[in-house]
Amino acid sequence: MQWECFHHSPRSHWAYAYDKDTIHLRVQTKRDDVEEVIAVTGDKYDWDGCHEDVVMEKVAADHFFDYWEAAVKPRYKRFSYGFRLRAGDETVFMTESGIGHDQPQPPGGYYEFPYIHEIDIFNAPEWAKEAVFYQIMPDRFSNGDPELNPDPISEWGEAPATDNFFGGDLQGILDHLDHLTDLGVTAVYLTPIFQSPSNHKYDTVDYMKIDPHLGDASVLRKLVDACHERSIRVVLDAVFNHTSEQFPPFQDVLKNGEKSKFKDWFHVNSFPAEVKDGVPTYDTFGFYGNMPKLNTANAQVKEYLLEVARHWIEEADIDGWRLDVANEIDHHFWRDFRKTVKEAKPDAYIIGEVWSDSRPWLQGDQFDSVMNYPFADKVLGFFVEEAFDGKTFADQMNNLLMRYPQQANEVIFNLLSSHDTPRVLTRAGEDKRRLKLAVVYLLTYIGTPCIFYGDEVGLKGGGDPDCRQCMIWEEDHQDRELYDFYKLLIDLRKTNPALRSGRFRFLKADEGDRRIVYERLGEGEHFMVWMNNTNEETEMQLNLNTDDWCDALTDEHVPVIDGIQTIQLEPLGYRIMKRKP
Amino acid sequence: MQWECFHHSPRSHWAYAYDKDTIHLRVQTKRDDVEEVIAVTGDKYDWDGCHEDVVMEKVAADHFFDYWEAAVKPRYKRFSYGFRLRAGDETVFMTESGIGHDQPQPPGGYYEFPYIHEIDIFNAPEWAKEAVFYQIMPDRFSNGDPELNPDPISEWGEAPATDNFFGGDLQGILDHLDHLTDLGVTAVYLTPIFQSPSNHKYDTVDYMKIDPHLGDASVLRKLVDACHERSIRVVLDAVFNHTSEQFPPFQDVLKNGEKSKFKDWFHVNSFPAEVKDGVPTYDTFGFYGNMPKLNTANAQVKEYLLEVARHWIEEADIDGWRLDVANEIDHHFWRDFRKTVKEAKPDAYIIGEVWSDSRPWLQGDQFDSVMNYPFADKVLGFFVEEAFDGKTFADQMNNLLMRYPQQANEVIFNLLSSHDTPRVLTRAGEDKRRLKLAVVYLLTYIGTPCIFYGDEVGLKGGGDPDCRQCMIWEEDHQDRELYDFYKLLIDLRKTNPALRSGRFRFLKADEGDRRIVYERLGEGEHFMVWMNNTNEETEMQLNLNTDDWCDALTDEHVPVIDGIQTIQLEPLGYRIMKRKP
Repeated sequence: MQWECFHHSPRSHWAYAYDKDTIHLRVQTKRDDVEEVIAVTGDKYDWDGCHEDVVMEKVAADHFFDYWEAAVKPRYKRFSYGFRLRAGDETVFMTESGIGHDQPQPPGGYYEFPYIHEIDIFNAPEWAKEAVFYQIMPDRFSNGDPELNPDPISEWGEAPATDNFFGGDLQGILDHLDHLTDLGVTAVYLTPIFQSPSNHKYDTVDYMKIDPHLGDASVLRKLVDACHERSIRVVLDAVFNHTSEQFPPFQDVLKNGEKSKFKDWFHVNSFPAEVKDGVPTYDTFGFYGNMPKLNTANAQVKEYLLEVARHWIEEADIDGWRLDVANEIDHHFWRDFRKTVKEAKPDAYIIGEVWSDSRPWLQGDQFDSVMNYPFADKVLGFFVEEAFDGKTFADQMNNLLMRYPQQANEVIFNLLSSHDTPRVLTRAGEDKRRLKLAVVYLLTYIGTPCIFYGDEVGLKGGGDPDCRQCMIWEEDHQDRELYDFYKLLIDLRKTNPALRSGRFRFLKADEGDRRIVYERLGEGEHFMVWMNNTNEETEMQLNLNTDDWCDALTDEHVPVIDGIQTIQLEPLGYRIMKRKP
Repeated sequence: MQWECFHHSPRSHWAYAYDKDTIHLRVQTKRDDVEEVIAVTGDKYDWDGCHEDVVMEKVAADHFFDYWEAAVKPRYKRFSYGFRLRAGDETVFMTESGIGHDQPQPPGGYYEFPYIHEIDIFNAPEWAKEAVFYQIMPDRFSNGDPELNPDPISEWGEAPATDNFFGGDLQGILDHLDHLTDLGVTAVYLTPIFQSPSNHKYDTVDYMKIDPHLGDASVLRKLVDACHERSIRVVLDAVFNHTSEQFPPFQDVLKNGEKSKFKDWFHVNSFPAEVKDGVPTYDTFGFYGNMPKLNTANAQVKEYLLEVARHWIEEADIDGWRLDVANEIDHHFWRDFRKTVKEAKPDAYIIGEVWSDSRPWLQGDQFDSVMNYPFADKVLGFFVEEAFDGKTFADQMNNLLMRYPQQANEVIFNLLSSHDTPRVLTRAGEDKRRLKLAVVYLLTYIGTPCIFYGDEVGLKGGGDPDCRQCMIWEEDHQDRELYDFYKLLIDLRKTNPALRSGRFRFLKADEGDRRIVYERLGEGEHFMVWMNNTNEETEMQLNLNTDDWCDALTDEHVPVIDGIQTIQLEPLGYRIMKRKP
């Protein structure tokens, strides 16, 4: 066995409380190297009286490693533990003190889970685990109140530019709730709606005021109430990393310099605050002088922003916040933000915008979720770009799953496109079959899926600003076949808990082959998804134990003959199977 | 190169801000596998304009791995980065997206350090980096005020039992400050002094009251003031995990059961709170029914305990808290504890009692330090128990150093014995030479050393309660030679900054050989410590570049002839060399 590949780290995503009774343990070993792993557990204060050996299951593998997992329920909310690993005749023990052939005398030197504190458990809202999200950029969704139009506005459907407006507003969203209900989504995430000079509104001038071109507080409240009546939750976008240069405190700093009472609200490296030779003398988002970075460690700034967070929950009854550029804001701020938000609404959902490894924010004390761009990269790399084979895809998916505790995986915000990326149909070279494979994957995978407005009717667009095109409302310009497909898959996910919370596992993911099969296994429900991610028609086979499978979309029985199921798939085709064990 | 052994994890002890300008990066590779590692860095928003390659240094190795480190100062408080690793002709790139031969296009998929927030930086008090601690158990140190004696008390110097008292008190410590000053320690840590029925007082009845057998608030204040006059800091012991069963709120729960207004102050699993067949119906420390566990997530409990923490800083001007059973208390509590304590005294020092891997508490938001029992285990294993050779010892020490960020290593609470372990002299089979090797190591190593009262005069004792013997005050019963040795070494550490903050590295640590050499390299100061941890006389040689070395204790020049220094050492002997580069 390759001892140097063994890995475990106590009190991390390798060992965490899943609920008040259960601790999840994970161990890494070299891929295909170890045959059996046992978690050797006991109470530190009474090892012999509370000793239990728990068999670990190999739950995932990636390019280098196998991952083993066990759920342990200690009798007294605490335990010490080590691991016994076996390959062939060789058995080794791993504890915090090291690795060796002899079992060290417990509990000294063993790993510890000192006590399960409910307050420390990662606890995301239940509704988020069930939700299907829909992301809307208000200026581009629907113009419901032309009196609020900015001047000038471009004609609906024209090409988006960095700085043009189309007149979409909150009333427009209100007018189209039937569309959301019909599509079947259960939550919306709106890009920023507070007062701002730009069309995207990621540069806020007044956090306490709805942008007058989008509506006002009463329309927002009406929108949220109407959504709630339809069991649709509403999440807003909090842009707390930076403001617009027109944000009054920053204007005060520009005007009064070091004498400004707001001078510590920003990170001014040298006064006067100005842009010198293209480089601002103050910290900014990127190098944009018109987006000065807020000093979130400043007590006044923090108080102000937390008041904003609370205000819109109380005033408009919103159900959560998506946090812009969340990784560039300090952790103290986010911990207090979570407290404030969860006090105001205990089941509010908090999603950080973090594009890379997000472990530091997903410990239970800061975010519930992050925008899962790594998921989008891998899924589109596989289904759209043919960048790698089934094995590599599975390796990458498993690697992402093993990054975070299960609670985070259950509500991580999975997406294929957003206002910051090309649209998925365009990335797919407008091949709807590829788009559909990616969407089937999104909607049958673990995590909280989000659909970018318009993707469901065939909206196209390259990178920002092209991806921010106007929604198509004329039915004869919409791709209704695609729409029905989205609707069907959303409904499938909503009516089958196993597709949301069932155990995910690849059944086929081979080298040099882009055909894959994976399963979701829940209580009383078992799904298999077969995907032919190649350009040729194919016949696939799998050994199966039971003959109770049917097509999940047609209910047609799909036989297993002599223990083998055989499926024909069109090029870029898929089939979803279901049984009720 | 063994790709599966490469390891890095962003925003962790593998990548952290050391100060407001500097980020430390670390990478792991298989031992003796990789020849060169370069950190490839750049600004995410302007890679080409802010791109820098930084050579990493191999700073440590353990049984399996080499560890590479670099300090990077990005121009704009943020950067993205990857690693370029080379062995022979092979070059590979490691980024967050994976490992491969081709450099991925930056910055997409690279690791990120999004922004250096001063508020998130691990920031321990400067004085703790310089301190030499002395741990005192008040009942056993000196009886300064016989009027406070418990009844009965055992005769001073009798064998300690679990429940006998010796009459030591705060006045006794005050009376012996000359001893501390003469010895040279700069800080004391007192085991608990609040009202409690036991001799160890780890079961508190009243956190706001000094135990009447030890003194009162005014004696404590006098003691702290007197210590401060001598530049000695004072740290008290906070026992917040559990209380005495006599703690009034718990008495109220026993009496009033579910109707008690204190019912949520504890973790009562079923009422009535009682001990049934030897098992309490409420959570306890270990299985001790007389030590009910506090519910630190309860707002009232938290408020009460934080008030205790603040009170004794304000009332007695103490300089920090040592936290009993710190790992069994929730993280939310410790984060608020840190805020409270640092508000009351910004340079207060917070040391958690955590016996195992303490990473979750050493992120900068909770503790400054932990009691370094793993250090004691390894040091005593090597110098006292002959449990392993020099290479294994070095592997283990390096492994511990790579567990935490440098800031934690600088103030981690290193000890050889405490009230919870056998005394080091007894563990050493009363071989003073072995004790001395361990003490030389302790006092020339990185971290904050602590001496358990009496170790310096030859006090003996096995495990608890035997290690809690009375201090010896008659000089002719003290081991004065040992005392002078401690004094000399403490003085050496205090007068030479390199022994506190210089870079630590092993120069010799070989398989099958218990002779070691290590260095501490600081600005303008360079130390080497040679140790013959064998029972035979020996001659050791080292290749050295300069001939400016002298014995640090005698100032005698020790020549380097033809690039070689040759040293004779007695069995279990040592020699400390110094030069001023």
